[in-house]
Amino acid sequence: MSDYRAPIRDMQFVMQELAGQARVAALPGITELSADLVDQVLQESARFSERVLAPLNQSGDLEGSVWESGGAVRTPAGFQEAYRQFIAGGWNALPFPAEYGGQDLPKLVATPVMEMWKSANLAFSLCPLLTAGAIEALLLRGSPAQKQTYLPKMVEGVWSGTMNLTEPQAGSDLALLRTRAERATDPVLGDHYRIRGQKIFITYGEQDLTENIIHLVLARTPDAPEGVKGISMFIVPKFLVNSDGTLGRRNAINCVSIEHKLGIHASPTAVLIYGGDGEDDATAIGAGAVGYLVGEENRGLEYMFITMNAARFAVGLEGLAISERAYQHARDYANVRIQSRDLAGGKEAVPILRQPDVRRMLMSMKAQTEAMRALAYVVGGAMDGARLHPDSTERARLGAFVDLMIPVVKGWCTEASIDVTSTGIQVHGGVGFIEETGAAQFLRDARITTIYEGTTAIQANDLIGRKIARDSGATARAVIAEMRSTEAELRGASASDGEGHLAAIGVGLAAGIEAFADCVQWIADHYRSDIKAAHAGSVPFLKLTGIVAGGWQMARAALIAHQRMVAGAGGASPDQSFYQAKIITARFFADHVLANGHGLRIEIMSGASSTLGLADEQF
Amino acid sequence: MSDYRAPIRDMQFVMQELAGQARVAALPGITELSADLVDQVLQESARFSERVLAPLNQSGDLEGSVWESGGAVRTPAGFQEAYRQFIAGGWNALPFPAEYGGQDLPKLVATPVMEMWKSANLAFSLCPLLTAGAIEALLLRGSPAQKQTYLPKMVEGVWSGTMNLTEPQAGSDLALLRTRAERATDPVLGDHYRIRGQKIFITYGEQDLTENIIHLVLARTPDAPEGVKGISMFIVPKFLVNSDGTLGRRNAINCVSIEHKLGIHASPTAVLIYGGDGEDDATAIGAGAVGYLVGEENRGLEYMFITMNAARFAVGLEGLAISERAYQHARDYANVRIQSRDLAGGKEAVPILRQPDVRRMLMSMKAQTEAMRALAYVVGGAMDGARLHPDSTERARLGAFVDLMIPVVKGWCTEASIDVTSTGIQVHGGVGFIEETGAAQFLRDARITTIYEGTTAIQANDLIGRKIARDSGATARAVIAEMRSTEAELRGASASDGEGHLAAIGVGLAAGIEAFADCVQWIADHYRSDIKAAHAGSVPFLKLTGIVAGGWQMARAALIAHQRMVAGAGGASPDQSFYQAKIITARFFADHVLANGHGLRIEIMSGASSTLGLADEQF
Repeated sequence: MSDYRAPIRDMQFVMQELAGQARVAALPGITELSADLVDQVLQESARFSERVLAPLNQSGDLEGSVWESGGAVRTPAGFQEAYRQFIAGGWNALPFPAEYGGQDLPKLVATPVMEMWKSANLAFSLCPLLTAGAIEALLLRGSPAQKQTYLPKMVEGVWSGTMNLTEPQAGSDLALLRTRAERATDPVLGDHYRIRGQKIFITYGEQDLTENIIHLVLARTPDAPEGVKGISMFIVPKFLVNSDGTLGRRNAINCVSIEHKLGIHASPTAVLIYGGDGEDDATAIGAGAVGYLVGEENRGLEYMFITMNAARFAVGLEGLAISERAYQHARDYANVRIQSRDLAGGKEAVPILRQPDVRRMLMSMKAQTEAMRALAYVVGGAMDGARLHPDSTERARLGAFVDLMIPVVKGWCTEASIDVTSTGIQVHGGVGFIEETGAAQFLRDARITTIYEGTTAIQANDLIGRKIARDSGATARAVIAEMRSTEAELRGASASDGEGHLAAIGVGLAAGIEAFADCVQWIADHYRSDIKAAHAGSVPFLKLTGIVAGGWQMARAALIAHQRMVAGAGGASPDQSFYQAKIITARFFADHVLANGHGLRIEIMSGASSTLGLADEQF
Repeated sequence: MSDYRAPIRDMQFVMQELAGQARVAALPGITELSADLVDQVLQESARFSERVLAPLNQSGDLEGSVWESGGAVRTPAGFQEAYRQFIAGGWNALPFPAEYGGQDLPKLVATPVMEMWKSANLAFSLCPLLTAGAIEALLLRGSPAQKQTYLPKMVEGVWSGTMNLTEPQAGSDLALLRTRAERATDPVLGDHYRIRGQKIFITYGEQDLTENIIHLVLARTPDAPEGVKGISMFIVPKFLVNSDGTLGRRNAINCVSIEHKLGIHASPTAVLIYGGDGEDDATAIGAGAVGYLVGEENRGLEYMFITMNAARFAVGLEGLAISERAYQHARDYANVRIQSRDLAGGKEAVPILRQPDVRRMLMSMKAQTEAMRALAYVVGGAMDGARLHPDSTERARLGAFVDLMIPVVKGWCTEASIDVTSTGIQVHGGVGFIEETGAAQFLRDARITTIYEGTTAIQANDLIGRKIARDSGATARAVIAEMRSTEAELRGASASDGEGHLAAIGVGLAAGIEAFADCVQWIADHYRSDIKAAHAGSVPFLKLTGIVAGGWQMARAALIAHQRMVAGAGGASPDQSFYQAKIITARFFADHVLANGHGLRIEIMSGASSTLGLADEQF
């Protein structure tokens, strides 16, 4: 297992030069966000991630979380202590309002911090991720009393949160949800609901890290309408909370098993039975788990959707984070593995980093990872602006950009991470297939990211439906106009670039933009007239959007790096080397990744007839 | 775990219509190969693969082969009995000469049979695969006495064979090999060698399936030249063989561990120590394992290369086979998983097969799998012709085609299988990530195929160096001419195709051929003048060759299917449905896979400067 080193230099570059760190710092409501403070947060986060979380990544995978009879779940060795340090360091509270004990850090700064946790230990990071989702929902729709009861402990992290959506028959299609919630009252408990049903795929649905687990559960009341309009959201705590804030009786929630998964072994994925009466604990509540309605009945899915941007953005970051880790791991191996001569000559075997195809693989990993980071952080910065910018037009513009890009960050970064982590194995050759090496874990872990929090197809449906077709491509066209001005800048700057990199990037970007613009128009034109054809191209369209948006950000990065190099000409500082590498990496992205835009355009605009051409029985 | 059903209809179509089964049957030396006999072989092989091998695939993965103290290896439950039936049924002997007990079946017929074993149980199939490699080497370079001693038992399968190349410091680069072989003599053993060294990654290097294991070991004699020209090949049997053919003493070979791998868990991957003296068996030989030279000293690598085409072809088939299995598994799930409404309308949830993106994923799996099969079988048929055709010019032409395509079958089919098996997980959604579902195993198993028997980069080096640059692209250009005549035929036939499929396939194929022809010329032009740039594009070039060659074969398939449909017009027989599906699948391949040729062309011809642009320390 290689070490993890947080890529702070690239993070800083992206935050400052691409994602508008200074503009975010100037937003009203952001207090004291000097560049120094940001750097300090990054340094401390790096230290914690590298020293505490990263060393548990492989051991956690090997040991896994273990279900114990009685329904307890034991997390791997070291996780309890790491979690204790995690909350003691205030990390869990980072992005939340000061009112509940949080640190109110803007999204842009929380983003690299989250990336680090996820690179260091994806399985660990899922516990705070789910807590954050539950906090977000309660912040937005919880009653004042609910907020007071649950949020301080959850923000601190001594209680965790979960999201309970999936049931065996209801995965991508929540209309099929069956868990029931019946109104009840009780002299001690007051008005509440009794929840009965089975939930699956509950990340950290049971664990030994926190005193209490606050489950947010989607269920139907007896008189609810059918389908998605009859789903309500409930708070169902593992231990009921007494009026003085202490923990009371054990609720009727049984963890009956955890899944045996391809990856994220340390993260327990629980099957939970709500309302069973077979608890071992004699003090437990039977006849339905006690739950408390969040907001109004039948609006649960709507509430869940409000928190979705944050959750999907976070899973997109997972794609980035695991790609970064896999890249570092492969690069480190390529530096020490001696095999074969250099093609340029010499009699001795050299590190495989010198082999052109190994370089191609590493460049592909590096370029895609940096493009993901650039796009994700830019979206993160826009999320802050969309919330806090004083000008409502600007808030709306940024909000539309964020909404357009969230499914892309989620879908594209995660899909690309499968490619990147698989390439990481390939760099290792035979030892990549051996689990002890650690490279295989990254692919196994990455493989869930395109599935949970909405599969890539779900993201793509959202993208073409709510984000393209609904406004007939207007938001996308506004982004295209920005892309075109970057391309024009590249043309302008290329005269001062003797290497020809900027010109080449410009050519690649122009082709990508053209393909994207054509496809936006095609989707807008066909979404209503031929909805199946539009959907047949939806995932390729999401990928096209990702590579063009990522290529655009890399082009911006190359432009800025070029300006900095020209300004600092003559020196050979580490910064000059960083900027030069950034330009070449951006060119790699243009020639090797953006180049796929042409094929994706054909898939999207011409591919539907064959995609939809077979009868069911011809498969 | 879904059942496996051998895709006999498609196999027959490809064998008969694309790979020239009738021409192979007419070759001199091929006796009695009627279509009926071939069908009977396929049916029996299907029965054995479906009923005996397939049911052990998941249980074998779960249990894995287990190393036991003392160095024994226990294969998973059921493997011994399956192997007994395998050799009792004569399956192991299928492709080998009748002289040694084989059945002399041509490659074209052995190919679908092998595909079935590999689809049913990849891990199991590796034992006979390695035996076949060892048999091939002994057939080609063993002495008459060696052949008589080893081949009958190996052909029958009561003894297995292994290939011992890799050492910890010598993977892709065998020049770094260190295992020693010293000449020795002994009153009982006669002239022999004593082998000392460590070999790793030895597939089925130890197991409990056969009475004896015949290791073929690469090692250096004391006076051997350095590098690859000083490597000799030795027979090193687990048990020495007495002059009467009975088994004698245990040789000094210790299996000290087996690897903990991402996939193919049932296939033991052994670390073998040759010449240790710590055996538990007191009757064992110490002071060097007894080995017997194959052929001449210092020509071992050359001998290994002779057998390489067959081995690489077989691993290419693994990519095809596991893709087929993953496709069937995903399709079966998509037919039964009810989720979401049909976009075309209706209030009820429908099988996810109706969702356009699920169809796209399944079509992508199906189209790539069928293209792999078409290309692989065509190459298999050409291997028979290259060996047996009465006309030496035709033998040479076919031989050159085979040599060109072997690295493509190996590299492209295996690389594509990673994509196909990963897509198979995605079709399953959340349950795809749960190991019990079985979908994840296919990705885990497929992931080795791009690595062993020469990584994709090694295949690509072979392709651009020995197969393109050496004859300045002449063989490739001859193949391009054939591709162009298929394209012309498509144009001719498209008038009678009201659906426009043939015309669309022709457009896609023409673009692919053009990209391929440009890149062949580019590689030929740059291989000597800028070898690093040529190598930087080698893997993309291999992929381009694969999709264009696969697209060509799918285009041929569509043409023939069209002719058959026209001939049988009016009927709605299962054959008509098969032919229609074939045309649409070929069109999918053109619009969704061949479409990537444009991007690959850019990568190959413009990508090197960024691939090679960073200094080592900039990674």
